[in-house]
Amino acid sequence: MTPFEELVKERRSASNFLPDHPITNKELDEIFELVKFAPTAFNLQHPHYTVITNSEVKEKLQAAANNQYKVSSSSAVIIVTGDKWAFKDAARIYEGLLMLGIVNKQEYDYQVSDTTMFYEQGGDRFQREEAIRNGSLSAMMFMLAAKDKGWDTCPMIGFDAAAVKDILQIDDQYEVVMMITIGKEKVSSRRPRGYRKPVNEFVSYVE
Amino acid sequence: MTPFEELVKERRSASNFLPDHPITNKELDEIFELVKFAPTAFNLQHPHYTVITNSEVKEKLQAAANNQYKVSSSSAVIIVTGDKWAFKDAARIYEGLLMLGIVNKQEYDYQVSDTTMFYEQGGDRFQREEAIRNGSLSAMMFMLAAKDKGWDTCPMIGFDAAAVKDILQIDDQYEVVMMITIGKEKVSSRRPRGYRKPVNEFVSYVE
Repeated sequence: MTPFEELVKERRSASNFLPDHPITNKELDEIFELVKFAPTAFNLQHPHYTVITNSEVKEKLQAAANNQYKVSSSSAVIIVTGDKWAFKDAARIYEGLLMLGIVNKQEYDYQVSDTTMFYEQGGDRFQREEAIRNGSLSAMMFMLAAKDKGWDTCPMIGFDAAAVKDILQIDDQYEVVMMITIGKEKVSSRRPRGYRKPVNEFVSYVE
Repeated sequence: MTPFEELVKERRSASNFLPDHPITNKELDEIFELVKFAPTAFNLQHPHYTVITNSEVKEKLQAAANNQYKVSSSSAVIIVTGDKWAFKDAARIYEGLLMLGIVNKQEYDYQVSDTTMFYEQGGDRFQREEAIRNGSLSAMMFMLAAKDKGWDTCPMIGFDAAAVKDILQIDDQYEVVMMITIGKEKVSSRRPRGYRKPVNEFVSYVE
């Protein structure tokens, strides 16, 4: 078994956390230093993370998440959002390749206008779905990186996104992708891992 | 640096592949054996993978993907879809926990009806977005597992999803989440990794 296989098999969605295990910004930053490498469409880096350790704000978020206990017992609550207008930042993001001479001015201009046009033509729905798609790729990277550093996580969708946006004053430009709670799992309240479909049930081959 | 950090930093979105490096179903199945462990909302396991190694079908897919050369030079093209009606399978998926006595009949019935109601109330848009969200979590796991086994990948969104559905006769129940090409990267045509935002630009702390 490779270290990665071990990591994947050890990672479980935590059903609860041990309270009083604070996580520092430095520890979180080390996780985010890896999250940075998750791929995003056209390298637009749509995802944004809001990390809440303040206990009053966590209580409000718990109320917005059907009062699930793991929200307040976690070390931090993380709201993953995606920037629906990430494509408007293309010129700045691609500038490095131009400055390094890896692309010339003409290629750069084409890349910027091509990316912009792709999202503009896709419209509101595509822009929203891209926020979710790229935010979720990133969120999986976050959960694995957290486990690699000894932290347990639980991805959550059972919450009132509008209430969360209101509590955290998240701008409409950002789509709420998911909530992730992070902490030290209360292993004593762990259940066996849920049923997983065998590979041949979720994979088809066209040979 | 941990083995996971190395893996993440070694993984690059391949800009092109060396042709004539076939991948076997056995090699792919080994990757999917790990993908199985990606979390999904309520353990509904929305993602489905269609793997194409047939060269004629690959050529059709290339035409549907703005004729990008990496589609035909890849060892396999993978279409990640998400089942919008995954919630209709809740009763079957949760049955194991009931049979093992981990939940009783009342808890089981509640879980099934609660999950079903959550998706029914969410409606078409939520069901589609859940397919994308859970499909993308799974896709990130796929790309890391592939790299762990020596394969390079490129996640792609620049293709005509309707044409892809038509070529592969994918049912409307499934939302096309992304295309992933997999193979052995042609390292000689590799560019430096694109600019990445520093952590403080994509993370906010509420302390």
